[in-house]
Amino acid sequence: MKTLRVELGEKSYPIYIGSNLLEQESLWQKHIQSKQVLIVTNTTVSSLYLDKVIASLSAFQVETIELPDGEQYKSLEYLTKIFDCLLEKKYSRNCTLLALGGGVVGDMGGFAAACYQRGIAFIQIPTTVLAQVDSSVGGKTGVNHPLGKNMIGAFYQPKCVIADIDVLDTLEDRHLIAGLAEIIKYGLIRDRQLFEWLEQNMALLLARDKPALAYVIERSCINKAEIVAEDEFESGIRAILNLGHTFGHAIETGMGYGVYIHGEAVAIGICYAADLSHRMGWISEQDVDRIITLLKQAKLPVTPPKTMDVAQFIDLMSVDKKNVDGKIRVILLQAIGTAALPVSVDQLLLEQTLSDYGK
Amino acid sequence: MKTLRVELGEKSYPIYIGSNLLEQESLWQKHIQSKQVLIVTNTTVSSLYLDKVIASLSAFQVETIELPDGEQYKSLEYLTKIFDCLLEKKYSRNCTLLALGGGVVGDMGGFAAACYQRGIAFIQIPTTVLAQVDSSVGGKTGVNHPLGKNMIGAFYQPKCVIADIDVLDTLEDRHLIAGLAEIIKYGLIRDRQLFEWLEQNMALLLARDKPALAYVIERSCINKAEIVAEDEFESGIRAILNLGHTFGHAIETGMGYGVYIHGEAVAIGICYAADLSHRMGWISEQDVDRIITLLKQAKLPVTPPKTMDVAQFIDLMSVDKKNVDGKIRVILLQAIGTAALPVSVDQLLLEQTLSDYGK
Repeated sequence: MKTLRVELGEKSYPIYIGSNLLEQESLWQKHIQSKQVLIVTNTTVSSLYLDKVIASLSAFQVETIELPDGEQYKSLEYLTKIFDCLLEKKYSRNCTLLALGGGVVGDMGGFAAACYQRGIAFIQIPTTVLAQVDSSVGGKTGVNHPLGKNMIGAFYQPKCVIADIDVLDTLEDRHLIAGLAEIIKYGLIRDRQLFEWLEQNMALLLARDKPALAYVIERSCINKAEIVAEDEFESGIRAILNLGHTFGHAIETGMGYGVYIHGEAVAIGICYAADLSHRMGWISEQDVDRIITLLKQAKLPVTPPKTMDVAQFIDLMSVDKKNVDGKIRVILLQAIGTAALPVSVDQLLLEQTLSDYGK
Repeated sequence: MKTLRVELGEKSYPIYIGSNLLEQESLWQKHIQSKQVLIVTNTTVSSLYLDKVIASLSAFQVETIELPDGEQYKSLEYLTKIFDCLLEKKYSRNCTLLALGGGVVGDMGGFAAACYQRGIAFIQIPTTVLAQVDSSVGGKTGVNHPLGKNMIGAFYQPKCVIADIDVLDTLEDRHLIAGLAEIIKYGLIRDRQLFEWLEQNMALLLARDKPALAYVIERSCINKAEIVAEDEFESGIRAILNLGHTFGHAIETGMGYGVYIHGEAVAIGICYAADLSHRMGWISEQDVDRIITLLKQAKLPVTPPKTMDVAQFIDLMSVDKKNVDGKIRVILLQAIGTAALPVSVDQLLLEQTLSDYGK
């Protein structure tokens, strides 16, 4: 087991990465201070891992809530079901919430923990590549709104993150691949060495080679933990983690949540960002090709959805957390391995990218 | 205009108390950093003061959302309407929310600000005595759940609090009186001198004497600001602000939100707390009488609702933010002017108070 640390003063916490972690009672004993425990999970994950987790929690009073599986359920409506459950069970403010699942479960469980009685303890137990390398680390929690992705939420840090790589054995290929988009993102924004490693070793990851997966998960978490430690509330550098996300969120919202899963939408968004970075004169056409080639190697989509036009993209992108007084701002690349802080781009260049990329 | 300060490091902010503050453009210029401004208010307040506020905000882009007036609308359902409005207007994360109204508007506006895009700036403009002396100060925001009052929320501090005492001119007597319950509470928990002043001067407050109102509002805010500065997240001393609230919240939830308004329910709750403090041997029967007499002088209710029985009280009180692993804890008095930290009370004594007080 490897232990990383997110350094946030009193709110610092460890990330555990390794095999067989779900059964390690010592981790629960160390990080759960209450008797009352609520596990938030989804129907897919619960059938695979819930019994195992509950068995290792014999020292606690455990209740469970299972949400339906999918981004379309990451809403205030389903969040309410978590509150209903906590209140029906008369859970106190000192209780602990465990979020056992992928990004949707982690974001919703974390947000429920942030709001229930104005804040209870919670633990992230990510079960997808995407959640292990990105969404479970750093305290971004929330739900979607019909008009915008992740528009309602909180910065709320977990007590620890338990990333058991064994659970990836049962992850569908589609979700494994989606997670690779965020790993490629770390390479692009601040870790050129990782990008180059991925160019050489993508086949190992697709073949689910355990040491290779462990390597990229750890390396991604190190990148994420460093950025979060520097800028917890995204007043500056943390925004670079959003490479491809402004475009990607527009695709997720525009196509209907769940049609493109998050990593897929981010992959297409990275293509747009690369194209626009090139139009700005920041990176070469060869760099753009190299980025698209790696995404394709990972079997990620690189072609925009045919049913969305420029106007719809602009409309959806005009609701984004990086915008200022309504002006669209995006994350672009200065090089492979170097992202810039949010920039207000020339509307004409943006429209060119949106109309021409992928055509 | 008096200026107090809530000392919370980087999150410190001023409380302005005085006349004619709603029109002071300089206050807006000082505390609003964005172009986009959303005013959250209710139908009662908007007809009286919205035009005045909007007129003084001519330098900004202003949108307004009016909620229905009443505790029964302090719900996730109506909170969603604020998010809908912000997203329909494409408001960015750097926008500012103004909460113009009583406790319900302040709690909901503050919670919406805490969650929209994971946190936007907000300003409290309390228009009731209760909001000016209590709920607008200290960053407690949230909504009710059918199973418990204020069960979903966040600690989220405003940029400033603007308490214009002129707006109290139009406040209904019932609401003026309800606010007195929280002022009496400050006297009971940590300000015996204030309690004694109230015993001498209650008639002035009921007659809406301006200097007397200004005095108790300022004194209450000083008490609140000191406690909040010491313990922002209620890990200790801040809990004493909940004197009478565990009982009071049970009444509000049990009778249906809005039947007893908050201050009325707290007044009855203070009677229960006083009775139980006496049963614990902490205060004398004379003290209990003195407390009830002052509440009566303020024309506050001191008799429990007839339709709630002991079992219902116990059931509702078993969901309370002060509880630990489901055990009921309450705030009791060691003397007039001194409250104790939350205590798990003997179930028998609690049941005696609930069955015998007011009979």
